[in-house]
Amino acid sequence: MTYCVAMQLHEGLVLLADSRTNAGVDNVSSFRKVSILQQPGDRVFVLMTAGNLATSQAMLQRLQVAIAAPAATRTPSLWAAANMYEAAECVGRAIRDVHALDGESMKEFGYELNTSCILAGQIAGERTRLFLIYPAGNFIESTAETPYFQIGESKYGKPIIDRVITPASTLNEAAKCALISMDSTIRSNLSVGLPLHLVLVRQDEMRVGLERTLDADDPYFERIRSGWGESLREAFKALPDPDWL
Amino acid sequence: MTYCVAMQLHEGLVLLADSRTNAGVDNVSSFRKVSILQQPGDRVFVLMTAGNLATSQAMLQRLQVAIAAPAATRTPSLWAAANMYEAAECVGRAIRDVHALDGESMKEFGYELNTSCILAGQIAGERTRLFLIYPAGNFIESTAETPYFQIGESKYGKPIIDRVITPASTLNEAAKCALISMDSTIRSNLSVGLPLHLVLVRQDEMRVGLERTLDADDPYFERIRSGWGESLREAFKALPDPDWL
Repeated sequence: MTYCVAMQLHEGLVLLADSRTNAGVDNVSSFRKVSILQQPGDRVFVLMTAGNLATSQAMLQRLQVAIAAPAATRTPSLWAAANMYEAAECVGRAIRDVHALDGESMKEFGYELNTSCILAGQIAGERTRLFLIYPAGNFIESTAETPYFQIGESKYGKPIIDRVITPASTLNEAAKCALISMDSTIRSNLSVGLPLHLVLVRQDEMRVGLERTLDADDPYFERIRSGWGESLREAFKALPDPDWL
Repeated sequence: MTYCVAMQLHEGLVLLADSRTNAGVDNVSSFRKVSILQQPGDRVFVLMTAGNLATSQAMLQRLQVAIAAPAATRTPSLWAAANMYEAAECVGRAIRDVHALDGESMKEFGYELNTSCILAGQIAGERTRLFLIYPAGNFIESTAETPYFQIGESKYGKPIIDRVITPASTLNEAAKCALISMDSTIRSNLSVGLPLHLVLVRQDEMRVGLERTLDADDPYFERIRSGWGESLREAFKALPDPDWL
């Protein structure tokens, strides 16, 4: 499985992904699920993927080839996108191109075409934007009402985001919230695991502002992990017991 | 959908169920999912069901007929069970009997046989016990490592239970935790809804100790709903921000 979350804030973008992949509990590996494609000062794209890893990697390869040698693939180049909407169309097209190539053969072997992506970034002239791209290659964009997207195992980590994140949250708050959300997910689903990859993009910088890999020995994540459990237990104690008994 | 949770504690049992049923978002109703069958002082059974409502009601009908007129059905009577394990066998048998009757016809119409149950209770001579009964009619019993079971939409409400509940938790603490867990679920899944039915069974009383219906205007549940969100936001603020930026 996978858990990735991305938040679209006035200050910019926060993205966090786990790195566990599994084909059954006896076949667990670690793969990076976050890719950065940028022309600093002009455009920055951060892409996170969930679902079949071969499809995700094939899609990414197509996007990279389209940038390096546009004539070599029919997938359009992200460097040619006039805005983030067109960039999301590029990614959707790359997914469809992989499906066109591998889809029938995968179906024969009983595999679903289930790659979903989060695309976040900024192209000069626009604000940062955030998209969720479905396995069919179509997509939706976040709005102020729901300024975040999740892919993979989304349920365990959703309640805390719903309670604290608004577009006015700071990048710091959003990073803290994403890590708490990830911690809740890792505790409840064995197929989500360390290391984590965190990426921050500040509004109008058109480049990645921070990229950080967090493992079990990261002191801040360790503090979140132990501190959040303790805080929850204290908050629980502080609420009054029922007086029915 | 449904959300039911039951906890097995040294002090006894706590059970909580929502009451929403739906066949699509345009066909939502309210049905009680908790049944109590007891011979006070000798035995008490509390049964919660999730899945196809017709199957759940047919199963319950069989259990009731087996008690009232054992000769009228091949489902064995809960009054004849020597211990809670045999009681769980009765319930599993009732599920299988309904499947034998309706299963083929349901399959023809594309419906799954998906009724799962939680059975909790006590028979004189034993301690309280808690079982999770699968659609196939087989079952598992809770142990000290995992002193609770959930059926239906279990993910949103699981993290708080994992953090605070042990067999040594009091009935009051467990009721509070079950209500917080339910609140998180209701907030995230429209197909789980009020009113709630809460049942408490004290150890060695062999009868229901408290039965309570909670609706939106219940003052304690209202306090949990507003207080928990506020506590989470405060706990979030109290954790340090990362110092990377």
